[in-house]
Amino acid sequence: MNQEFLKACRKEKNAFVPVWYMRQAGRSQPEYRKIKEKYSLFEITHQPELCAQVTKLPVDQHGVDAAILYKDIMSPIPAMGLDVEIKAGIGPVIDKPIRTREDVERLGQITPEQDVPYVLDTIKLLRTQLDVPLITFGGAPFTLASYMIEGGPSRDYHNTKAMMYSDPETWFLLMDKLGDMTVTYAKAQIAAGAQAFQIFDSWVGALNAADYRTYIKPVMHRIFSELREEGVPLILYGTGARHLIMEWNDLPIDVIGLDWRISPREARQMGVTKALQGNIDPSILLAPWDVIEKRAKEILDEGMEEPGFIFNVGKGIFPQVDIAVLKKLTTFIHEYSSKKLG
Amino acid sequence: MNQEFLKACRKEKNAFVPVWYMRQAGRSQPEYRKIKEKYSLFEITHQPELCAQVTKLPVDQHGVDAAILYKDIMSPIPAMGLDVEIKAGIGPVIDKPIRTREDVERLGQITPEQDVPYVLDTIKLLRTQLDVPLITFGGAPFTLASYMIEGGPSRDYHNTKAMMYSDPETWFLLMDKLGDMTVTYAKAQIAAGAQAFQIFDSWVGALNAADYRTYIKPVMHRIFSELREEGVPLILYGTGARHLIMEWNDLPIDVIGLDWRISPREARQMGVTKALQGNIDPSILLAPWDVIEKRAKEILDEGMEEPGFIFNVGKGIFPQVDIAVLKKLTTFIHEYSSKKLG
Repeated sequence: MNQEFLKACRKEKNAFVPVWYMRQAGRSQPEYRKIKEKYSLFEITHQPELCAQVTKLPVDQHGVDAAILYKDIMSPIPAMGLDVEIKAGIGPVIDKPIRTREDVERLGQITPEQDVPYVLDTIKLLRTQLDVPLITFGGAPFTLASYMIEGGPSRDYHNTKAMMYSDPETWFLLMDKLGDMTVTYAKAQIAAGAQAFQIFDSWVGALNAADYRTYIKPVMHRIFSELREEGVPLILYGTGARHLIMEWNDLPIDVIGLDWRISPREARQMGVTKALQGNIDPSILLAPWDVIEKRAKEILDEGMEEPGFIFNVGKGIFPQVDIAVLKKLTTFIHEYSSKKLG
Repeated sequence: MNQEFLKACRKEKNAFVPVWYMRQAGRSQPEYRKIKEKYSLFEITHQPELCAQVTKLPVDQHGVDAAILYKDIMSPIPAMGLDVEIKAGIGPVIDKPIRTREDVERLGQITPEQDVPYVLDTIKLLRTQLDVPLITFGGAPFTLASYMIEGGPSRDYHNTKAMMYSDPETWFLLMDKLGDMTVTYAKAQIAAGAQAFQIFDSWVGALNAADYRTYIKPVMHRIFSELREEGVPLILYGTGARHLIMEWNDLPIDVIGLDWRISPREARQMGVTKALQGNIDPSILLAPWDVIEKRAKEILDEGMEEPGFIFNVGKGIFPQVDIAVLKKLTTFIHEYSSKKLG
């Protein structure tokens, strides 16, 4: 069993820098695209054998040091009573977005064993098959709320922020409900065998630090405090969140996921004490190998200045990325870092 | 003639904090929406009388201290040989995006007097009508290139960055051509009577600081150095660009436009020495008045700590904003700041 990822989460000494890639299981893989011709995302996640296969593909292909369960952050939302459709090329779409106090009050809680048994079954199955740790994940309340209120992906989150600023009571009720769901959902996944849990607060960088402290930090603190007891590493990631990084550092988490606009050294100089995960700009993966290698080396050199560094992309892998590049990059990271650390 | 905006650009003492709003002329105004039922954006900008009317509307309605010429940053691109359509609810769309060296080589230069005479005529007309300064603007090379390469608005700019990282020679040729165009276009507008020039590098925050220095800063430095001789204040704005703010501060500009994720005090503490413009989150304008007033007061209190502050939104006004709120906010800013500064 390859423990390097878990060691890095705990800031223990590594033999080499562990690596995995956000969206490593997905449309960059020809085998996945073939499966997607027959099944939707929801259909794949409802079939544990198939979902485990999709989750394992990148582990076998690229040699990464962790698997991340294939699913979508919106997966548990239908069980709360809100229909979600994942539309190709768009993302999660909700026909009846929530806008009022009544809409929020109507949202129910989930019972993972009844509502998402297939998620738990897939985790159990994967644990019998994998020789790397299994990460599972959920969306953070702000990011989930943004889809639920806007009705889909958004650039400006005007409606989400309008609720936050105009009706804080409804906003905090929504945060509470999504916080409860996240804790319940994560605990069930950890009980089923998840060895680390990452929360994607992908879009929270749209808020400034003062608003983060007022409207978001309390629920994030509660979620992570409640999950802390479970004993698995907790990771928090979002894009464009450099200005929130010291707020995140206050939370009871183990790892902060960086995007490409803050380097590992900068993060530590700003005072971040958590393990770090990141942060190559995935667009660079379209460039010639020498450009990729140079950038990877810069990131590794900074990352390895302290224990607790996991190599990853700064945002998810996207369809045009050549999987041969991911394999080559993984090998390079292992070789380069083992020379320095070994 | 109300000179407060120009005084603030030059960091001279103000009698009150001047205010204008990005996209103040636009879909938040019922009169504008009525005009848009009959004419497209391009059709409006081709008719100087009508375009002047649209530009003046918010000056008359809200009492702002500067007018900004109604047009789109993509306006000069068709004259370079690339067809652009502004699609409602989407933005600029280009059917044949540029991807190769040949595509970039084919781009021509503009002759403003021949290619966009209506822009110059509108400026001349407005100068006979306005009693506040007239700002005109252009898009920065990165932001223009992002539309030209992606073919429309984008979240990740993968193709744009792919060209930048993979083929720097073509990238710099594109930056040169867009830089030349920007200088030519701006000089013609200033000669026609524009009293300040703002460059929108709206999306450049997608790059990290190291890449900004390598791929963007040289052309920005050249543009502003060449425009410097014209003697009008130069403003640079982009969203999500907090991590680039000290790079911007090196450029020969007068004013830095802030989004809502960096406060005026923070910017100055980081070492910014330019005049500042910003930065209320436009989403707050959907909230009750007491929330708006509190936030405006916080921004003003910080902004007024040094001379050279212009109140604005941190990103453009959007359709749902009530114009009555903009009028009330403008009045509040004038009254509150004149008490402190007067």
